[in-house]
Amino acid sequence: MASTTYAERLARARQELVARRLDALLIGPSADLSYLTGYTAPLLERLTMLVVPASGAARLVVPALEAPLALGQLDGTPVEVAAWKETEDPVALVRATLDSSAALDVTAAAGGRLAVGDRLWSTFLLRLQAAMPTASFTVASTVTRMLRMVKDAEELDALSRAAAAIDQVVDQLTELRWIGRSEQDLAKELDQAIRAAGHDETCFVIVGSGPNSASPHHEPGARVIQPRDVVVVDIGGRLDGYCSDTTRTLVIGEPPEGFLEVYEALRYAQFAGCQAVRPGVSAAAVDKACRDVIEQAGYGSYFIHRTGHGIGLEEHEDPYIVAGNDEPLTAGMTFSIEPGIYLPGRFGARIEDIVVCPDQELEPEPDGVEASAGAERLNRTSRKLRVVKA
Amino acid sequence: MASTTYAERLARARQELVARRLDALLIGPSADLSYLTGYTAPLLERLTMLVVPASGAARLVVPALEAPLALGQLDGTPVEVAAWKETEDPVALVRATLDSSAALDVTAAAGGRLAVGDRLWSTFLLRLQAAMPTASFTVASTVTRMLRMVKDAEELDALSRAAAAIDQVVDQLTELRWIGRSEQDLAKELDQAIRAAGHDETCFVIVGSGPNSASPHHEPGARVIQPRDVVVVDIGGRLDGYCSDTTRTLVIGEPPEGFLEVYEALRYAQFAGCQAVRPGVSAAAVDKACRDVIEQAGYGSYFIHRTGHGIGLEEHEDPYIVAGNDEPLTAGMTFSIEPGIYLPGRFGARIEDIVVCPDQELEPEPDGVEASAGAERLNRTSRKLRVVKA
Repeated sequence: MASTTYAERLARARQELVARRLDALLIGPSADLSYLTGYTAPLLERLTMLVVPASGAARLVVPALEAPLALGQLDGTPVEVAAWKETEDPVALVRATLDSSAALDVTAAAGGRLAVGDRLWSTFLLRLQAAMPTASFTVASTVTRMLRMVKDAEELDALSRAAAAIDQVVDQLTELRWIGRSEQDLAKELDQAIRAAGHDETCFVIVGSGPNSASPHHEPGARVIQPRDVVVVDIGGRLDGYCSDTTRTLVIGEPPEGFLEVYEALRYAQFAGCQAVRPGVSAAAVDKACRDVIEQAGYGSYFIHRTGHGIGLEEHEDPYIVAGNDEPLTAGMTFSIEPGIYLPGRFGARIEDIVVCPDQELEPEPDGVEASAGAERLNRTSRKLRVVKA
Repeated sequence: MASTTYAERLARARQELVARRLDALLIGPSADLSYLTGYTAPLLERLTMLVVPASGAARLVVPALEAPLALGQLDGTPVEVAAWKETEDPVALVRATLDSSAALDVTAAAGGRLAVGDRLWSTFLLRLQAAMPTASFTVASTVTRMLRMVKDAEELDALSRAAAAIDQVVDQLTELRWIGRSEQDLAKELDQAIRAAGHDETCFVIVGSGPNSASPHHEPGARVIQPRDVVVVDIGGRLDGYCSDTTRTLVIGEPPEGFLEVYEALRYAQFAGCQAVRPGVSAAAVDKACRDVIEQAGYGSYFIHRTGHGIGLEEHEDPYIVAGNDEPLTAGMTFSIEPGIYLPGRFGARIEDIVVCPDQELEPEPDGVEASAGAERLNRTSRKLRVVKA
């Protein structure tokens, strides 16, 4: 990204602060920090904190030993760097920055209204609260989500490239040897394939086989894959800072009793979720479109999670596609559509694509359930059941 | 670990709560959670929280879709599992757990005294504070550090195996091709070597070459390694849950002007740090022993970080070997001794070993500066300068 991009993002963050009557943003190492400044800071016990007052210069408080790293990555971003030495108190430096900001007096009885990074560690928030007892604190995402939810062209391009890379791995799935190998062993091979496909790192690999496919966040283990197993493969990595995330379900040879009905209901549900996506429709309505199909098929109580999550610099971010989230979707929002049906002790299945909310309704493609109607799919692999030869 | 281990750890945590007049521990996904229960929870936006009241049953509040994962890993640990569904409020469930605990009434004017995980995300702490406005909050490490700092035999064994694995990678360093390759390229090869040596994952790889060796937390980049470069290699991974971390400094062919003096001062400083380690000596005294040597050599202002950090389930944990930390070391504590000297724009060097505080003073080994006097070194590779043939 160009340094003008970060200057613009910081300016928009200030506008959001003013609009929400907040006095400053306090951001630790996180996707918010990367988004606003271009600095991807190590997540360690020494405090790194970006202070963005509603008016006045932004400052990055950084441990002295990480100052060279920060200065290298900030490259042109309009942020002052204030390094603290090993025996100094960085919280005092944050407070001094706020005190010197014209807009704010945290010593006053009324205190400041400060927005701290959602993922800032509690150890730091508690120290900030102790140092500024009259200030009030809220989460920074009230400000940053408004910026980060809608992706610009460069971000959409990065997400498309990440999706294409993970799709390469998906396209190889049925070629792998499955029978007689453990979930862990397959996960290790997929980890390598994710990086070989161009990701800078693997973020996660779920391989849930047989009854483990009914555990949505299963950790790959020692279970050995057998004929007639259902296997849920949910994989993602990071490429140029942006995340990929896709899920496909495989069956090894002949599917188990009752599985095809489940899978077909799921496939229609995932299609219905994609089709419901358009500007102005609420996140909750997309969840409902998906869920209705599964409920009508009689599996409602086995769809035990929301339909999806936003994706960008983080694997999971706003907007969440969940009942109760009445936020209207807007063009350029990116998120997963990933219904699942999980029958405890038997099997589970999930289908997940990352999609973009388009600026207008797209025409359906001609091939029925494989078409994308409402949403633009970034993952393009087939959603038909993948059968591995037993 | 046996489930009795977790039962004992939970019992000790309760004792510490009582001794510190705290009412409950509230622990999110973290090393604390793994240590107390055996459950390594995914770090995601849905709240997972272990509630340990000073008296009464411990309960794990967990998202429904992760309940199968949690139940599988808890396997015998005396913790109730309370799953919450996607549209329920997990903070209300945490509060209800506290309210039902005999020892605690967070609705009372006085409120409860709650210890929250140091690395719990602020978004969760702010929600807990809003839900329990009369409670006071402090960090959980006031309790858990007392347990986690001193390692038991099984933990020491795991740390030794992790150290032996990373030492294998160090022993191969001078065999690699360096000249003409980028830091990034070398980092990728080291990442693979770390896993090939038996680690379950790579935690970090620092390759800082030429002037980049003077940036202690340098992120490997495009710089191509040349003859006469100094290269700092700081690598670590995780094996059976426990971390490795070691640093060695290499020179490619002929060392640059002034480097050998710096390196020899550093080597004596690191030795002095190891030698100062014994039960009853403060962490600050070990830092001073190291720092004095570097100051006497005239490089004091170029040693810009503390001497070391504890290590175990986390790369960096208590005790920190830093000026001002007057905590006495005790047998079984494990930490790094890693002084560095960094000359901006020229070169830097660091030597790092993980050591154990022994239960009595060890006899010095016979071979001079390579001997370990006070501390038991878990990393055993030579600390002499490594020269790569140019």
